[in-house]
Amino acid sequence: MSGPIVFLSDLGLRDEFVGVCHLVIARHAPDAHVIDLSHGIPPHDLQNGALVLREGMAFAGPDAVALGIVDPGVGTSRRAIAVATAEGPRLVGPDNGLLSLAWASLGGAIAAVEITAASIGATRVSPVFHGRDLFAPAAAMLAAGQPLEALGSPVPLSELVTLTVADPEVRPGNVAAEVMDVDRFGNVRLNVRPGDLDVAGFKFGALVEIASSETSVRARRVTHYSEVASGEYGLLADAWDWASIIRYEANAAAGLGLTRGEPVWIASAD
Amino acid sequence: MSGPIVFLSDLGLRDEFVGVCHLVIARHAPDAHVIDLSHGIPPHDLQNGALVLREGMAFAGPDAVALGIVDPGVGTSRRAIAVATAEGPRLVGPDNGLLSLAWASLGGAIAAVEITAASIGATRVSPVFHGRDLFAPAAAMLAAGQPLEALGSPVPLSELVTLTVADPEVRPGNVAAEVMDVDRFGNVRLNVRPGDLDVAGFKFGALVEIASSETSVRARRVTHYSEVASGEYGLLADAWDWASIIRYEANAAAGLGLTRGEPVWIASAD
Amino acid sequence: MSGPIVFLSDLGLRDEFVGVCHLVIARHAPDAHVIDLSHGIPPHDLQNGALVLREGMAFAGPDAVALGIVDPGVGTSRRAIAVATAEGPRLVGPDNGLLSLAWASLGGAIAAVEITAASIGATRVSPVFHGRDLFAPAAAMLAAGQPLEALGSPVPLSELVTLTVADPEVRPGNVAAEVMDVDRFGNVRLNVRPGDLDVAGFKFGALVEIASSETSVRARRVTHYSEVASGEYGLLADAWDWASIIRYEANAAAGLGLTRGEPVWIASAD
Repeated sequence: MSGPIVFLSDLGLRDEFVGVCHLVIARHAPDAHVIDLSHGIPPHDLQNGALVLREGMAFAGPDAVALGIVDPGVGTSRRAIAVATAEGPRLVGPDNGLLSLAWASLGGAIAAVEITAASIGATRVSPVFHGRDLFAPAAAMLAAGQPLEALGSPVPLSELVTLTVADPEVRPGNVAAEVMDVDRFGNVRLNVRPGDLDVAGFKFGALVEIASSETSVRARRVTHYSEVASGEYGLLADAWDWASIIRYEANAAAGLGLTRGEPVWIASAD
Repeated sequence: MSGPIVFLSDLGLRDEFVGVCHLVIARHAPDAHVIDLSHGIPPHDLQNGALVLREGMAFAGPDAVALGIVDPGVGTSRRAIAVATAEGPRLVGPDNGLLSLAWASLGGAIAAVEITAASIGATRVSPVFHGRDLFAPAAAMLAAGQPLEALGSPVPLSELVTLTVADPEVRPGNVAAEVMDVDRFGNVRLNVRPGDLDVAGFKFGALVEIASSETSVRARRVTHYSEVASGEYGLLADAWDWASIIRYEANAAAGLGLTRGEPVWIASAD
Repeated sequence: MSGPIVFLSDLGLRDEFVGVCHLVIARHAPDAHVIDLSHGIPPHDLQNGALVLREGMAFAGPDAVALGIVDPGVGTSRRAIAVATAEGPRLVGPDNGLLSLAWASLGGAIAAVEITAASIGATRVSPVFHGRDLFAPAAAMLAAGQPLEALGSPVPLSELVTLTVADPEVRPGNVAAEVMDVDRFGNVRLNVRPGDLDVAGFKFGALVEIASSETSVRARRVTHYSEVASGEYGLLADAWDWASIIRYEANAAAGLGLTRGEPVWIASAD
């Protein structure tokens, strides 16, 4: 059995878009196992989609096929691509950077092809929904055992569109960061690794001042949610090893007035 | 292997209703492949459910079984039915019109039976949730290979409840339409086919005036989202070949103040 | 084939948490059939999660494995457990009461083990997401055929944390109840069984007065939604045999200003 198709999109679950992609996959690869990673990416938010896909693929296994659909440029000249990675997983989606953080974390892209209607034998391709008509069939073909080269003509790796994650500014006693994501619980993931906190000199148990554009709060660097009292703030390594602002049994993002992309400043408060 | 069960409802994903239907299906047909088309149909909105089911079933293949649960009349004398279509798919749900647009688009209904507790051997049927106790088991029985006739007694096709889609008024230079749906991105699907736009004389590239009850905007007839500038309006054929009002990287429905069922007027603006 | 993994959580579907648990399960048990019961439990709401899990497991079959993740105490000393029940289903999750209503309704717990990183061979366990690193692998191992004892050391059943459901006060002509849940349609599930309504003397067809802290309304005791007129209130047995306040084609909870946990008083009005 081949690995799962890992499906991520900004299509949401209210409409029939995601369900129809599942139907298309089932027709091309009846035995494929499709796992919905998330369809809650904010509409057209490539950066968020790329980050979530990267974090998810770390748990997917070498024979997985990622199907990524965040595609504001559908119908333009942006390519439709399938990419093989050094660690094994293959990635299918638009060539707009959505897949690029995933392949970088999977040892890098080692081959890429351009998917066209002709190259996968599609007889009808809507100019407004390549997810259904190009990407879902292509992912299904890979899951059903076809090689990457069967999906289209090679694309030079140097031509692939890539995204980057902004680095934080880290100095002794100060970190200037950016909000990468806010989850359902209001936890605030920063573009900061625990090692950056060490470099800044924020020790476990120490107090820091965390400032948004709106307000600032005191937080303690901890390893568990429950090390801070109810309603208090903490700074910890989240389950993907990103520094994250949390608030025990409360919503840190709401308390700080933070949303994705906004700046955050952390300073020593001891 | 039989085709998938294509599951559509207004049950939402917050509660356990959909999950429990999946559990019931798994007990009757452990190998069945259930694909969730959408559970975001507005509560009790038969018209929207019927439209989404029709659009989805076009991608489902001849051996699919549709399971439709939008059932405001549960517990009344409305029948529970299973319907065979000329093109192959079978449809299970309440006889309230929910399934009728799908069977019309699948070559028409060719046989129908009434599902009762006795006819499927159900020992307990809640008068408030036939989805779990009648429709899910019946769909599972079909997916597991049982013939339609095993599910109940025949119903004359002429007695089945049907819905219709309102036709637009199309004249040279003018179309009076209705909003069939607004998707996650704010795209506005009209009860208008691209051919109607041709009849009205709206050529590709031409400007039209689109009016809601609240406001009016200029739009260009195009084939791709990206043919209009960011924030500008377009009129294009969507992925199911309906005329749709779009706004590049913005929300057309919000801009026009439109929701499902409301009137829209399109006129030449050149 | 083993029974399904029945997955319930407060993780929501916007983030990648649920999808990643599916990926982890697929790596440990590629053939496992995972059914999402609900991921819409309000964040950290153990009582609601326990109730929904109990109601769902009634439909799951004896070989099912429940995976429950509502885990506000992750990283504290609360245990991670797997529990066998008299009726067959096994339950995996935190030892915080989340699983306790389910095992009580499944004939009682008959064995329990404590899951640790070492006992399941996990090499890396995040202190903030045991769902991914302990519970999902453990559920997958059970679904793949491993016995309960393979997952860890026995825990005395008397040490397991349990929740209870508050009993209503039932007297002739009066019931003092509590809102257990409000569903998508605004139906209000009470901690009251139909038998309690009989004890209070509320006959089918009779009128009662239903009061919240905000307002009061007249309702009729019925068995079907459609026995009351559009917009009128009814009191009926829901699909899980709980007394529920409904409003035909309208939202009862909104009309009464009720949310989960609030008190409700029912009195004779004839």
